Amino acid sequence: MRIKVSRKEHFNAAHRLFNPAWSEEKNKQVFGKCSNPNYHGHNYELIVSVTGEPNPETGYVYDMKILSDLIRDHVTQKFDHKNLNLDTEYFKALNPTAENIAVVIWKILREKIDSSLDVKITLYETERNYVEYPAN
Amino acid sequence: MRIKVSRKEHFNAAHRLFNPAWSEEKNKQVFGKCSNPNYHGHNYELIVSVTGEPNPETGYVYDMKILSDLIRDHVTQKFDHKNLNLDTEYFKALNPTAENIAVVIWKILREKIDSSLDVKITLYETERNYVEYPAN
Amino acid sequence: MRIKVSRKEHFNAAHRLFNPAWSEEKNKQVFGKCSNPNYHGHNYELIVSVTGEPNPETGYVYDMKILSDLIRDHVTQKFDHKNLNLDTEYFKALNPTAENIAVVIWKILREKIDSSLDVKITLYETERNYVEYPAN
Amino acid sequence: MRIKVSRKEHFNAAHRLFNPAWSEEKNKQVFGKCSNPNYHGHNYELIVSVTGEPNPETGYVYDMKILSDLIRDHVTQKFDHKNLNLDTEYFKALNPTAENIAVVIWKILREKIDSSLDVKITLYETERNYVEYPAN
Amino acid sequence: MRIKVSRKEHFNAAHRLFNPAWSEEKNKQVFGKCSNPNYHGHNYELIVSVTGEPNPETGYVYDMKILSDLIRDHVTQKFDHKNLNLDTEYFKALNPTAENIAVVIWKILREKIDSSLDVKITLYETERNYVEYPAN
Amino acid sequence: MRIKVSRKEHFNAAHRLFNPAWSEEKNKQVFGKCSNPNYHGHNYELIVSVTGEPNPETGYVYDMKILSDLIRDHVTQKFDHKNLNLDTEYFKALNPTAENIAVVIWKILREKIDSSLDVKITLYETERNYVEYPAN
Repeated sequence: MRIKVSRKEHFNAAHRLFNPAWSEEKNKQVFGKCSNPNYHGHNYELIVSVTGEPNPETGYVYDMKILSDLIRDHVTQKFDHKNLNLDTEYFKALNPTAENIAVVIWKILREKIDSSLDVKITLYETERNYVEYPAN
Repeated sequence: MRIKVSRKEHFNAAHRLFNPAWSEEKNKQVFGKCSNPNYHGHNYELIVSVTGEPNPETGYVYDMKILSDLIRDHVTQKFDHKNLNLDTEYFKALNPTAENIAVVIWKILREKIDSSLDVKITLYETERNYVEYPAN
Repeated sequence: MRIKVSRKEHFNAAHRLFNPAWSEEKNKQVFGKCSNPNYHGHNYELIVSVTGEPNPETGYVYDMKILSDLIRDHVTQKFDHKNLNLDTEYFKALNPTAENIAVVIWKILREKIDSSLDVKITLYETERNYVEYPAN
Repeated sequence: MRIKVSRKEHFNAAHRLFNPAWSEEKNKQVFGKCSNPNYHGHNYELIVSVTGEPNPETGYVYDMKILSDLIRDHVTQKFDHKNLNLDTEYFKALNPTAENIAVVIWKILREKIDSSLDVKITLYETERNYVEYPAN
Repeated sequence: MRIKVSRKEHFNAAHRLFNPAWSEEKNKQVFGKCSNPNYHGHNYELIVSVTGEPNPETGYVYDMKILSDLIRDHVTQKFDHKNLNLDTEYFKALNPTAENIAVVIWKILREKIDSSLDVKITLYETERNYVEYPAN
Repeated sequence: MRIKVSRKEHFNAAHRLFNPAWSEEKNKQVFGKCSNPNYHGHNYELIVSVTGEPNPETGYVYDMKILSDLIRDHVTQKFDHKNLNLDTEYFKALNPTAENIAVVIWKILREKIDSSLDVKITLYETERNYVEYPAN
């Protein structure tokens, strides 16, 4: 009887899409206005889903208060009101696409959550663009 | 060619998280303000999904009007504007966490819907906390 | 150059519509299922709007962080995960309709905010029912 | 490391549910007010999801700008502000239920997107009724 | 102490923007794809707001259940799953723009609601286009 | 018979709250994490409202297609995927608070729209913080 529970949080950040192996011109050609050297930004909506058996004593798969604290301490305090390229260790050499941000967040939280539970990240960059990792 | 069709309904209910095998103190320690003895409440958003082959004559997997009536007659009329702990038969001995409410609703509807079709419940307790059963 | 700034917060509470001057029967007749003696509940969405001139040094009409703290300390900490009828001083003798809750919140916040600024409350009881005080 | 990326678009269209093999009376009996001979309409919200490995050079599974253009050129320009039954080639002989519209859109886009990538369609007919194809 | 209370309902309809005093060509030039002779459609979201003093016995400005019934009986039963141009008496000679639909709904409801109360209509034609009447 | 019509658009931008007359320390003390020197960002949701009499021939107060083009040409093309402080002429010496951004957008559009019509700006910086100018 596996159940998936999800918690939605958010952070606001600046970023720029950029591949340092490419010229500014090629970056602009591939990433368009998303490669603006002075950055742009988003209100990211982050959903963290945890799947497992509910604990028979609590009826919880995972305490949402504890999950919320985990996301705040390990993800949103690092990313909120930050420049993802300049202010975080994760995107010095990694392009901060929504795909890459989702995988980074998954890796951070995966090791904080018991391995009997599955972890999934859904990240909305805008209301119209979002990514999910793992895909299923 | 299996397609999933979903119908969103809602109900407003009071509840309290509580394990009768525990002391009030332990309930408060584990469930925090969710264990307030005088109850609190939510606008629950309920999504019922049915997966199967569309009927070639109608183009429907399941008539949404019939699904909506089924949810009203067997779920929301029992839960809407009720105290889940006191006014329903389901949560006298079962803690009304979102996980447990979703499983209860799944069991109610599973037996009303033809077994060739899959049934899935998604339940939003708040805009930021929700559960899915089965998980996949 | 008066500007209106708004902050959205939320609280989850149980309540029951009830006029103690009436019989249970008349309460049931007038308030229907909203008068369930065992209570029901809602996720209330609360918008507090403040109107005034922006401060030329900050560009703020009102610091949203300070407004958010004010709402938390004086409103949501009193109402969140509570039974409005039983757990708050405000609705012992006052029926907790959305209209009355909005006026109570307005009175609480009006005296905490400088009188040069206008204060307005918008309260969503459900996604489909909401009230505004003052009306304009 | 497969990631699912999604793009949300919309179109506004008229339609009528109708099986030409049936009498008007049987159509009305089965499809109710959805079979109104003069049509009714919807704001359809369309989500196109593409699943695959991110390109190591771009960090993209699929460029959202290219996906948005693909949807516009091959789907929404054909369906937006149209009568699905009368103005499109797809629903002359096929009943435009949400299920059938989703499968038609999937077939249109499936052949425009590299076969190493999975394609999924989610179509909201209203805020409360939606379909997904394939189901998983 | 005037309070505004609002109720949100919805209806799905087909329409076509068309001025019968003009040629098809001029209609197409002015109204573009909104003038498609075969119609298109929308999920209209309708908010009806009523402003007045709360009744001291009930705490209600207006019973939302009664307002909801009034909207259903006099507005949505006439407009839902209809072709506004062909199936309603109101838009035989009046162009069904969002502006005109809002004024028609206001006139219908204004005469059903006591004149001590103000009535306002907000009508969303799409998530991105909406109108309000009266303006203030 | 004045009616208000509204169009919702959006832009994604980076910004930093900063008063150049103050030290970095005082900026940090007043604006907190919003003053991060490397910027952060938002998905701004912009609603432009125009109030006037509907044209009797079209039934429009203002053609939403023309309003949408006006907003794109004069506002979102200047602000979207930009750093408001560095890439726009407006916020070189003006702090880009939501209040100031709204007033700047109002001034840009006010002079493009006939003076018989009222113009109002609503700007969401996040889902929970928004401003309106003029206030009424």
